[in-house]
Amino acid sequence: MSARAALPPRDHDPALHTLLVKTIKGLAMDGVQKANSGHPGMPMGTADMAAALWTRFLVHDPSQPHWPDRDRFVLSAGHGSMLLYSLLHLHGYELPLSELQRFRQLHSLTPGHPEVDHTVGVEVTTGPLGTGFAAGVGLAIAERILAARYNRPGHAIVDHFVYGICSDGDLMEGIASEAASLAGHLGLGKLVYLYDDNHITIDGSTELAFTEDVPARFAAYGWHVASVDGHDPIAVGEALAAARAQTERPSLIACRTTIAQGAPTKAGTSASHGAPLGPAEVEATKKAMDWPLEPTFYIPPELPAQLAARIRPLQVLREDWERRFAAYATEHPELATELRALWSDEQPAAAREALLALEFPTGTSVATRKAGAKIVSTLAKHLPSLVGGSADLAESNGVSHENLGAHSRRDPAGRYLHYGVREHGMGGISNGLALHSLRPFDATFLIFSDFMRGALRLSALMRLPIVHVYSHDSILLGEDGPTHQPIEQCMSLRLIPHLHVVRPADANETIGAWLHALSRRRGDGPTAILVTRQGLPVLDCSRRDISRGAYVLWQPEDITTSELHGILVATGSEVSLALAAAQRLVTAGLPMRVVSMPCWEAFEAQGVEYQNEVLPPAITRRLSIEAGTTRGWARWAAHQHGPDDFGASAPIEALVKHFGLTVDAVVERVKQLP
Amino acid sequence: MSARAALPPRDHDPALHTLLVKTIKGLAMDGVQKANSGHPGMPMGTADMAAALWTRFLVHDPSQPHWPDRDRFVLSAGHGSMLLYSLLHLHGYELPLSELQRFRQLHSLTPGHPEVDHTVGVEVTTGPLGTGFAAGVGLAIAERILAARYNRPGHAIVDHFVYGICSDGDLMEGIASEAASLAGHLGLGKLVYLYDDNHITIDGSTELAFTEDVPARFAAYGWHVASVDGHDPIAVGEALAAARAQTERPSLIACRTTIAQGAPTKAGTSASHGAPLGPAEVEATKKAMDWPLEPTFYIPPELPAQLAARIRPLQVLREDWERRFAAYATEHPELATELRALWSDEQPAAAREALLALEFPTGTSVATRKAGAKIVSTLAKHLPSLVGGSADLAESNGVSHENLGAHSRRDPAGRYLHYGVREHGMGGISNGLALHSLRPFDATFLIFSDFMRGALRLSALMRLPIVHVYSHDSILLGEDGPTHQPIEQCMSLRLIPHLHVVRPADANETIGAWLHALSRRRGDGPTAILVTRQGLPVLDCSRRDISRGAYVLWQPEDITTSELHGILVATGSEVSLALAAAQRLVTAGLPMRVVSMPCWEAFEAQGVEYQNEVLPPAITRRLSIEAGTTRGWARWAAHQHGPDDFGASAPIEALVKHFGLTVDAVVERVKQLP
Repeated sequence: MSARAALPPRDHDPALHTLLVKTIKGLAMDGVQKANSGHPGMPMGTADMAAALWTRFLVHDPSQPHWPDRDRFVLSAGHGSMLLYSLLHLHGYELPLSELQRFRQLHSLTPGHPEVDHTVGVEVTTGPLGTGFAAGVGLAIAERILAARYNRPGHAIVDHFVYGICSDGDLMEGIASEAASLAGHLGLGKLVYLYDDNHITIDGSTELAFTEDVPARFAAYGWHVASVDGHDPIAVGEALAAARAQTERPSLIACRTTIAQGAPTKAGTSASHGAPLGPAEVEATKKAMDWPLEPTFYIPPELPAQLAARIRPLQVLREDWERRFAAYATEHPELATELRALWSDEQPAAAREALLALEFPTGTSVATRKAGAKIVSTLAKHLPSLVGGSADLAESNGVSHENLGAHSRRDPAGRYLHYGVREHGMGGISNGLALHSLRPFDATFLIFSDFMRGALRLSALMRLPIVHVYSHDSILLGEDGPTHQPIEQCMSLRLIPHLHVVRPADANETIGAWLHALSRRRGDGPTAILVTRQGLPVLDCSRRDISRGAYVLWQPEDITTSELHGILVATGSEVSLALAAAQRLVTAGLPMRVVSMPCWEAFEAQGVEYQNEVLPPAITRRLSIEAGTTRGWARWAAHQHGPDDFGASAPIEALVKHFGLTVDAVVERVKQLP
Repeated sequence: MSARAALPPRDHDPALHTLLVKTIKGLAMDGVQKANSGHPGMPMGTADMAAALWTRFLVHDPSQPHWPDRDRFVLSAGHGSMLLYSLLHLHGYELPLSELQRFRQLHSLTPGHPEVDHTVGVEVTTGPLGTGFAAGVGLAIAERILAARYNRPGHAIVDHFVYGICSDGDLMEGIASEAASLAGHLGLGKLVYLYDDNHITIDGSTELAFTEDVPARFAAYGWHVASVDGHDPIAVGEALAAARAQTERPSLIACRTTIAQGAPTKAGTSASHGAPLGPAEVEATKKAMDWPLEPTFYIPPELPAQLAARIRPLQVLREDWERRFAAYATEHPELATELRALWSDEQPAAAREALLALEFPTGTSVATRKAGAKIVSTLAKHLPSLVGGSADLAESNGVSHENLGAHSRRDPAGRYLHYGVREHGMGGISNGLALHSLRPFDATFLIFSDFMRGALRLSALMRLPIVHVYSHDSILLGEDGPTHQPIEQCMSLRLIPHLHVVRPADANETIGAWLHALSRRRGDGPTAILVTRQGLPVLDCSRRDISRGAYVLWQPEDITTSELHGILVATGSEVSLALAAAQRLVTAGLPMRVVSMPCWEAFEAQGVEYQNEVLPPAITRRLSIEAGTTRGWARWAAHQHGPDDFGASAPIEALVKHFGLTVDAVVERVKQLP
């Protein structure tokens, strides 16, 4: 058992517990009431379990909120944000009461749902149900990988728990089911969820739609499960202690609770879920719990000091950890350096150099997914923070466990995750991995980006530097047919703020795609790399630096810009098509420039000067070529070439003809452009 | 127990069984080998269970493939399509052997994954794992609703089973978990899944990622579960018989199988999953099962006749049903008429008239979701095929059980489905409901369309006339903040082929949105209706006929087209904003036309003449206004106004100012247009 797991729980102090619970309830009611918007029922119903966890088990130091070895707390039921804001404020995090009084106001530190990197102490942006649960699984996987790789005998540098609170809604969501199944498979002993089993959803009783036996389901996943009265802090504490002792299984503690507990008429009803209780009910609740009606946002003067006293030994633990880390750094300097680099996302120069040293001979045919496979296995050697996996399509996507090692119970140091056919869970877990300072990639077919879009969007909202690898990036995947052929997916990803979408033209640009992705840091955002199933010629005019997003790939020699007939703008597999067409067109007296535009977002970030250099405004005869929907391309090209309807099951040779993705068809199209 | 459930299984004929299984294996191997692409392992591993189901239990009539009371067969593991094509051909469906020989070729009837309405006898388009499973749940719900509403004592007109085959991959997917939990809750006794428990996924053994106890999980959902040897047809038959006898619970029969059973070296390996076995292995397999090597696609001459003999009594059943339906029509003419109308998607004129009779006084403020609520409850009265529900946001979305009745075990006639917080499962179930001739709607917040995109896309690919209701359609939902505020979702939906996206400007256009949705039939496609949380003025210039997609809402009187300063093109809540801005601008000497464009797709379907009438090409000074990403709007307007970054948690008044969605900001923007 780890040292953290062996820590005895802090004493249960009934008076402190009661005071904290009442204070949380008061703050939650007042915060929601003042905002005239929000969810009072959840914080009131979970105050007991949260108080038990925070006062007796959670190891953290509010003065050092980024301490790497802190326990993580995930409020998966993010609508109960006032619970978290109250806990953070009362425990001394930099979240003043005035911010709690500005709950849900513009630019406040207390938005409707918790946002990481916005409010200190918030570990994960939550709200969309189930996604926080999955991120918690990712945090726990990260802890296990880091512990296995960096701890040494006598040096338990990485050794902490991931605790969370989840709701009925979380557990109804498929993403949570996927992540829970994988967590059970992996046996994540340091993951402990308190399940707020309040029998209430927005529409009413869970009897309406959710009568499954949740503990039995989680037991079937391989979890340790317990069921307790969620308002009995001693029972919750005992269950938490038992859960911590489970080293081989994640734990779900089903806490039977009453939503809005303490509210005389609204407790136990869906009326308390998503709306203020109303002044009368707030008053009645305060009276019933013997609480001052005024001032609102009342905090008993003795409470902060009592909580601070509970934090002090944790600060001692943290300081002890600093000393232990120093000793570790003396004995294992290279590991310590690696860990520090990982925590600050500093990438070894060797990683970049190794990518640039890769060779893909010009003129050969290389599927960009195959190029990707070489890149990933190379990076795995040089980038210790790299971790990732595929949703059961490792070979197909071009991401294998080569040089990463498959992660499992038996090999917790492995950095390759066999996600199974669980795209949404995978995306949510990636978020947790990235929040724990790792550099995750995940992978599936482009079509199945649809299945993980909820989590993918959160990676963009949290601006996490995740690489989403999507192979089989167009109808040219062939025979699998329209159920597997993306049409709208590429453009649809481009619509997500802060997500960079890179569709490389060949192996060279694929290297560029990864270099670009690695240059993005936490606070920038994720990168999607779209790669082909089919082979693509390695071009002599393509670039390994795609950081400007688009560039002039080719135009006929001795032709000035003003002599150009027009511009072909293409991405991915259509770049070599555009090039071949342009080379044919020049003999027909129609000199065309070919622009490769692997990344719209990077191109948009350039100044207008560079944009005008690549796409001179005077040249309005422009044709975009992309094997996906033409919608959206009007932004860069007045004319568009691509399939706007669903694909078809056929060999690639038949498809390129049928969908007009041949040199003949493009040449003909250009000739007919007005 | 129903008559169908009480039907004794047909006899097990060991010789016929063996012959059929070998034939399926041969066809599957040869089909994949000839296509040089596909999945041989699954059909070979499931041939036994499928043969047991089809020869002994499935009630269908290949000569009348659309017989309403046929049992449904769902191949959720759609990659095993050669299994289904083989069964259909051998049983006499209109699928000639020549088409099996054109497996995965352009325009063949045998695409890589089964496609409904493309190949006769295919009930659901499958392939994306888990989605078929959920559609099967929808089919079973539809059967139960129709049986409860239309059967009368002595007249069991609707009484059939839904059988399916699902794989490990299906059961790993969250959508299947969601649908399974709901199916257990509802107690769908006529749903029976055979689970192909072959321990193999693409990446290798299920030991890599999937070690949960599946039967225990399904038991926790409330399912009847059984585990059998999937290659023992008698055991499978006994389990099927027991499953049919379960009237109160859906059934999962875990069939332990060997993938590619019979292949000497590739059986039981992932090598047989997604690639041809290769000529040598095919030959060795055929030899091992004592099968002629030539001709390929060999069908023993006696087999079709033997299978036809098994079909004959089913045809008698079907003919008997026709007689019974005639008797029913005599005794219950109105019900029979209603059923016939439902089967042919004929809508009573009263439905349309009732919508047009709704009154929303001009000048009042009505959230379009509230208008939607009135519409849905009105339609519920007049449209018997209407069925639907929300993912736990009934009131919020504006779809309640008023006039529909909540569907439950106790009230199987109810047409309102409490989906719980299960968006993806909901989308998949909608597909099944629509495939069973119902007119489903589903509903959630627009942001959570992301969570159901996999199923939503299939509704478009299958061209099913589903209405997807998405409320809280912009950042103007307010305090819930960026996790809940759609930015890219509206545009992203517009990218999906055959999906019509309608964002109505006010209550009038919301009526138009529903009229438009109802005008779309099977073969057209689904409609997404995006409605607001906030109130919107009911305009005196808005229309209830939005079938042309866009129209001139307003322009200053006595101003000719050539005198216009420009055009404001807006949708949804921004239409009244554009109108107010235009009315202000006219006093500033800048006469603007205001175009409401509730539905791009309908507008695109108009001739260019109408398009030019609404958006005269000469007027290039156009500004789009939509509270979502501006990407994509370049198609209609050279200038765009809208938020391209994530939203913020704040009251609506603060948000409109912050994001420039005020009359002042629009007026200023127009003044600065070049």
